[in-house]
Amino acid sequence: MTIVLERETKLPLYIQVKNRITELIHNGTLKANSKLPATRELAASLGISRNVVISAYQELEAEGLISSSIGRGTFVSRSAYAAKRGRTEHQSSKMSYEGLFSTGWAKYFSEAFTSLENLKQLKSDKDFISFDPELADFFFSDINNFKKSLNAALVSSGSALLSSNSPQGFEPLLEYLSEFLSLRGISCGKENILIVNGTQQGLSIVGRLFIDPGDTILLENLTYPGALTIFRSLQTNCIGVPVNNNGINLNILENVLRRRKAKLLYTIPTFHNPLGSILPAEKRDELLQMCRENQVIIIEDDYAHELSFNGREISPLKARDEGEGVIYMGSFSETLFPGIRLSWIVASTEIIKKLTLIKKSSDLYTNPILQAAVLEYCRKGFLGKLIKKKVLSFKKKSNAMQKAMELYFPQEALWNKPEGGLYQWVDIPSSIDSLALLLNTRERNVIFSPDRFFSVEEWEKSGFRLSFAAANEEQIWEGIRVIGDELKEMIYKR
Amino acid sequence: MTIVLERETKLPLYIQVKNRITELIHNGTLKANSKLPATRELAASLGISRNVVISAYQELEAEGLISSSIGRGTFVSRSAYAAKRGRTEHQSSKMSYEGLFSTGWAKYFSEAFTSLENLKQLKSDKDFISFDPELADFFFSDINNFKKSLNAALVSSGSALLSSNSPQGFEPLLEYLSEFLSLRGISCGKENILIVNGTQQGLSIVGRLFIDPGDTILLENLTYPGALTIFRSLQTNCIGVPVNNNGINLNILENVLRRRKAKLLYTIPTFHNPLGSILPAEKRDELLQMCRENQVIIIEDDYAHELSFNGREISPLKARDEGEGVIYMGSFSETLFPGIRLSWIVASTEIIKKLTLIKKSSDLYTNPILQAAVLEYCRKGFLGKLIKKKVLSFKKKSNAMQKAMELYFPQEALWNKPEGGLYQWVDIPSSIDSLALLLNTRERNVIFSPDRFFSVEEWEKSGFRLSFAAANEEQIWEGIRVIGDELKEMIYKR
Repeated sequence: MTIVLERETKLPLYIQVKNRITELIHNGTLKANSKLPATRELAASLGISRNVVISAYQELEAEGLISSSIGRGTFVSRSAYAAKRGRTEHQSSKMSYEGLFSTGWAKYFSEAFTSLENLKQLKSDKDFISFDPELADFFFSDINNFKKSLNAALVSSGSALLSSNSPQGFEPLLEYLSEFLSLRGISCGKENILIVNGTQQGLSIVGRLFIDPGDTILLENLTYPGALTIFRSLQTNCIGVPVNNNGINLNILENVLRRRKAKLLYTIPTFHNPLGSILPAEKRDELLQMCRENQVIIIEDDYAHELSFNGREISPLKARDEGEGVIYMGSFSETLFPGIRLSWIVASTEIIKKLTLIKKSSDLYTNPILQAAVLEYCRKGFLGKLIKKKVLSFKKKSNAMQKAMELYFPQEALWNKPEGGLYQWVDIPSSIDSLALLLNTRERNVIFSPDRFFSVEEWEKSGFRLSFAAANEEQIWEGIRVIGDELKEMIYKR
Repeated sequence: MTIVLERETKLPLYIQVKNRITELIHNGTLKANSKLPATRELAASLGISRNVVISAYQELEAEGLISSSIGRGTFVSRSAYAAKRGRTEHQSSKMSYEGLFSTGWAKYFSEAFTSLENLKQLKSDKDFISFDPELADFFFSDINNFKKSLNAALVSSGSALLSSNSPQGFEPLLEYLSEFLSLRGISCGKENILIVNGTQQGLSIVGRLFIDPGDTILLENLTYPGALTIFRSLQTNCIGVPVNNNGINLNILENVLRRRKAKLLYTIPTFHNPLGSILPAEKRDELLQMCRENQVIIIEDDYAHELSFNGREISPLKARDEGEGVIYMGSFSETLFPGIRLSWIVASTEIIKKLTLIKKSSDLYTNPILQAAVLEYCRKGFLGKLIKKKVLSFKKKSNAMQKAMELYFPQEALWNKPEGGLYQWVDIPSSIDSLALLLNTRERNVIFSPDRFFSVEEWEKSGFRLSFAAANEEQIWEGIRVIGDELKEMIYKR
């Protein structure tokens, strides 16, 4: 035990001795239960009075760092750490997480979500008229048939559903989906499908397979904010490619691809979110070819495939892709109900194998009980009937929204008529801030989603998204009237 | 249009003209629908015969790149890309994913999983005796009461369960858990809990909040392979701290912490996986103090809290932690059934808020239907009864395993008697490779998990994990006999 004392300092000698021994205990030189020198001995070796050492020992004992036992001597306490505990509790006993968060979190994540969270907060009150689809229309959600399917699944597949399952998905559902997808023109076996907890998880898993920080990712500007959040949290450069009622702008995409190497393109070619538009068939082949030649992987989000108002078949990119360049995502969230948390990814066998490993690492596997219930629900034909009812309702409500907008919106507002899906986009003069509009209509209990929630980068135009999914017709008329009022107020009365 | 021809090359002139025009189309200089010069004009400007140009144009037309229209002239086809498509299909029409995978995937992920996947493959046959808990014991899985709970939840909470839910979890379940956790000595409100799809997702989300590539993460060596996979896929330096029947080695941990800055410690203090050991109470406080002082976040995985064979209360680190330094994880997978995919994280309000955002980005929210069903199942007292039955069964089977090992194992094999949980660890001479042992017993249809699946770094000892959860008593006697045989064979007959 080496103790060096400073004669020049004003610190009393006994405090110096105490501090030095404390250090030796804390840095592990003096181990728990090791014996300290006798006071007389230590005093002699340091050339100081024995009383100084006794005082130091008394202080150390009071702090629980050492303990003495008559006739045996003085010892470092059983646990130096246990002893220190008593000491530090009076100071700062709380863990400080400052500086411990990941760069990804600190730089991209919190930022990306702040705005969405604020939007959420606007929507807490029950009396609001919401043009946001998150409060899904469970009017049609067909709970009794779903309950029947759930019970049937538990009876037929029994306890097997309660035990561990394949990370790739409940096998009979994979088989069903491979047949089901052939109706969309996608030919795939069950080895080409991975079940995930919603498209959000699908994107997150695909992102982790391909993305390194700094990679360039292309998204339509505007796009689904959940995708943006994921790609940003993976520390990518997100580049927006303009999209309008005619789908993504291929000339600009081509220019972008000439200038930079991009790894992924995330696109919603059918009933685009938020625009509601459809990428025309002829542009689909060009897009495929362009991405193939530039080695850009396409992630096709076909979330609303079945929700066509006129029964028109829209063949996905995946169905046209002969080169495995498309990673395709579909979902039961929009057709069945959001709470089901079931989507699927279709890709080449090699990619599905890799994605399955990441899925397994993320959460082992998706709950098999609901997979079996959904399969039962589909096989009994309940899903087909539900979709028919939904599409009829959405179409009717979309028509009502068109009429209401014609009546109440100023001529400066422009919009197209969606052919399906959940969304109606409205362009307004770029001098009007759609977030300011939201804050105004919110005062009158009407909410919607302004452009900035969907923009990948600076968006020079102005507009907002309405969904006709959640509100009923009466609410649509009333809500559109309120938005129209406030819009006119902002345009004409400034 | 600039065309430079090389007179020195052997390439026929018309091919040179054709190739050059093809380039101009592909690089975008010649746009779709743009008019090409007349053959006479181009021939004149290049100083070549008109027949050469005509041949070049004919070739280009045959490839679909250009088309001519009598009286109007010759034009680049509507879509150069669509045209090119026909051309490249004969060559390589497949997307090549080579070089597109993320560094994390390529460097850490595939590697980490390979061994586990191989183990899995050993277990495909139904007639095997498995000492692996993944084939969970659904003998007790109480399917009827679960079905009752599911139906009751659908009736009472109705369609609300089918629509979007809070990313943090089904609120009544959060409330229930906060009371339930107080029985473990953990005082928390619902704002301190996040519901996740199993502990694997919990770890994955916590990892993403805190971990940057290159961070140092401490794990017990040996540990739960799922945790290792996640931390490795996040490109961390995983350091193993020895653990034995007395829990993690605090002296070595202290030394490690003195040498390097670590961000997280992942620990399973109760019924350790794979060792089955318990960290003694007095060491728990030391561990807490040591981590607090070094600003190391503790992730406590308390997956088997209720599975104590002697009813002994083991207070988690979280219950002893006054400084919010512990992120606590619990699960319904072991107590209810693995397929339920429901675990929870307990942490400070600030941390839960951040984790909730990552959870939302990962998969929006956990399925509310099963959350409501589990809540119903717990409230009715079914879970408590199920756990009692399970613990009795596990204890009985663990005793049978002890007896079988005493009878059949050579004296070189050493083991302790677990006080709870799912696992029995067996030490064997380090000269024996436990994987080789597995390959031998597998020939006789008996499988278990060898040490290397749990090792963070080189492990100088040798051993394997048995689980008494899945096998019945008869299988245990038979399986242990086979392992004992093969072990003796390997030790004595070399």
